Amino acid sequence: MTGFGIDNLPYGIFSTPGTHPRTGVRIGDAVLDVAALTGDDVHATGSLNAFMARGPAAWAQLRADLTGRLSDAAHRATVEEYLHRLDDVTLHLPFEVADYVDFYSSRHHAENVGRIFRPDGDALTPNWTHLPIGYHGRAGTVRVSGTPVVRPSGQRKAPQDAAPTFGPSIRLDIEAEVGFVVGTPSELGTAVPQAAFAEHVFGVCLVNDWSARDLQAWEYVPLGPFLGKSFLTSVSPWVVPLAALEAARVAPPAREHELQGYLQDGEPWGLDLDLEVRLNGEVVSRPPFDQMYWTPAQQLAHLTVNGASLRTGDLYASGTVSGPGRDQRGSLLELSWNGTQPLTLADGSTRAFLEDGDVVTISATAPGAGGGRISLGEVTGQVLPAR
Amino acid sequence: MTGFGIDNLPYGIFSTPGTHPRTGVRIGDAVLDVAALTGDDVHATGSLNAFMARGPAAWAQLRADLTGRLSDAAHRATVEEYLHRLDDVTLHLPFEVADYVDFYSSRHHAENVGRIFRPDGDALTPNWTHLPIGYHGRAGTVRVSGTPVVRPSGQRKAPQDAAPTFGPSIRLDIEAEVGFVVGTPSELGTAVPQAAFAEHVFGVCLVNDWSARDLQAWEYVPLGPFLGKSFLTSVSPWVVPLAALEAARVAPPAREHELQGYLQDGEPWGLDLDLEVRLNGEVVSRPPFDQMYWTPAQQLAHLTVNGASLRTGDLYASGTVSGPGRDQRGSLLELSWNGTQPLTLADGSTRAFLEDGDVVTISATAPGAGGGRISLGEVTGQVLPAR
Repeated sequence: MTGFGIDNLPYGIFSTPGTHPRTGVRIGDAVLDVAALTGDDVHATGSLNAFMARGPAAWAQLRADLTGRLSDAAHRATVEEYLHRLDDVTLHLPFEVADYVDFYSSRHHAENVGRIFRPDGDALTPNWTHLPIGYHGRAGTVRVSGTPVVRPSGQRKAPQDAAPTFGPSIRLDIEAEVGFVVGTPSELGTAVPQAAFAEHVFGVCLVNDWSARDLQAWEYVPLGPFLGKSFLTSVSPWVVPLAALEAARVAPPAREHELQGYLQDGEPWGLDLDLEVRLNGEVVSRPPFDQMYWTPAQQLAHLTVNGASLRTGDLYASGTVSGPGRDQRGSLLELSWNGTQPLTLADGSTRAFLEDGDVVTISATAPGAGGGRISLGEVTGQVLPAR
Repeated sequence: MTGFGIDNLPYGIFSTPGTHPRTGVRIGDAVLDVAALTGDDVHATGSLNAFMARGPAAWAQLRADLTGRLSDAAHRATVEEYLHRLDDVTLHLPFEVADYVDFYSSRHHAENVGRIFRPDGDALTPNWTHLPIGYHGRAGTVRVSGTPVVRPSGQRKAPQDAAPTFGPSIRLDIEAEVGFVVGTPSELGTAVPQAAFAEHVFGVCLVNDWSARDLQAWEYVPLGPFLGKSFLTSVSPWVVPLAALEAARVAPPAREHELQGYLQDGEPWGLDLDLEVRLNGEVVSRPPFDQMYWTPAQQLAHLTVNGASLRTGDLYASGTVSGPGRDQRGSLLELSWNGTQPLTLADGSTRAFLEDGDVVTISATAPGAGGGRISLGEVTGQVLPAR
């Protein structure tokens, strides 16, 4: 059981040697050529954007069509000629990223970061339980899983240093996150309520928001992260349609105080996703997404409540997913407690932050409609030395 | 003298009733239809991106060609059939914005903001003189001059309030800025040195980075501005080629300490631009750009030093331009000193922040090659009530 059964059917962009990138759907260890099967030019554009822009009725129709073709024995033979072995295809960035927003919606993560960097203050800033904190990242450096991570250089200054120094980052880190991909745009000046979440969001991917903690620490006051994040953000090649995650929907955690109207909990859009982080093949963390404080529906409502418009291809990520346990933390910053408690790997080596050559892979599963679990695939990357 | 003589020749995207948007060049009070004149499809795409992507040799060649045609009496008659009166055309967003970055490079502005919000601390954060602080903004809400400014709603909480409240912003502000438009992309993982500035940056526009100070104050710790900025950013319709600003180049201010290698001053890329801010037609500020601490070449080098790649259409803005004088401040936050010293307008009314119906127009001029001044045009917008 691969987690890519008929109750999943995630979309991606693939090519075979000598052919143009086009839309495919993963089924088992194969990719169904949706462009060739349907003959619809929207699937031959080399990104999911044009299809996503058609809106939820078109998404539902194609999913029903594909489900029918893949379920029905009578169709099976015609479908098979459009299948490619996964090993024979190259997977590309599945969508053109319009704007990229990164939230900060795991309470456990935010509290860990607060305790590490502000040991004498409150773990959470006063706004944290009132709104989903977020910021814009660099859309142009979002790349598909497998893209190498060239170690970034930049300025850093430890508190005890007299002046900043320049060089390759010595605190390169990961952030295990879940991303939400917007299909249907919205008008400038008009808020999108939580109830419209499923009309606008097409699907879900995995995100590794690679972070250079030393660069970030020196630059981020007062305007937030910039070069500490902008060198690369990796996404999984498969976008799981929201429709495949119905069985994963759960209520978010209890609230401490009443939320502003646009953020009040309605239909549950918490998601019971189990993430897994592997470092050089070894599982180092299993972050649970079901404990995220802010849901993607609340994030969308917040993102647009000031009238900001959505575009097809907007990506917003959850922020680092961390659970309460030490082995549920979604970053090395937390796993090694800012380097003070390095991880010991199976080969006896230790890690506070990433070394050149390290490979990090984030994967996730969720309950599927078939009673088993569906897979969100994985996002992976290897660290290369600074140039 | 309009400031749009032969030594300027800025590019924009225009249409006449019933025609498609295409590339034009402004000359005097007319627009030259570059698409029709040259017959080159790159100018019929409805944005400058495809032309900008061709790189500096193509930019120089077209500028020389247009200069020749507009200077030479023998060509004059053929050119005239491609001219449209400015009053007869609609101007569009001149380029598709890839990523939008906003810097914070006026020392006077940063010190004013520091004194207002941290009266007991240092005016500048420790990193400010070591690197050009910047952050990513929302590319999808960058709009052309003239787009109405719908007053944004959101959460705010004054220090004395027990809990946040929700409603239309009551501290809506402007930020007078200068924007730099990237033409030539760069590779992921490779820094762009200051010396390559003119190979990558196509031209310059004016930017009004509308800001809701009350939303911003509550949300921005610890990850920076988000909804306080993302509802709208306005740009001028004309992109002045870097080549038109040769006579405007000046050295930046003296440095307090040695800069890291990638930021050390080389060829001078400070720019002697005179900005003007009008509120309901009345000049309220004249910010001088020549005193900006960080140059656009330094900003570009910083933006990419971690290996972040550039895309055609990337826009990065200077940050609010403020000079040392009270009448040289580029935001109402500074002009009214956070509302404590409201401006008195000619009609006897006062302004701490913007009221519904207010019109703000930012314009600028620079020394031109002809010995006079060239115009960067203007960026304007009217505030509409919250929806």
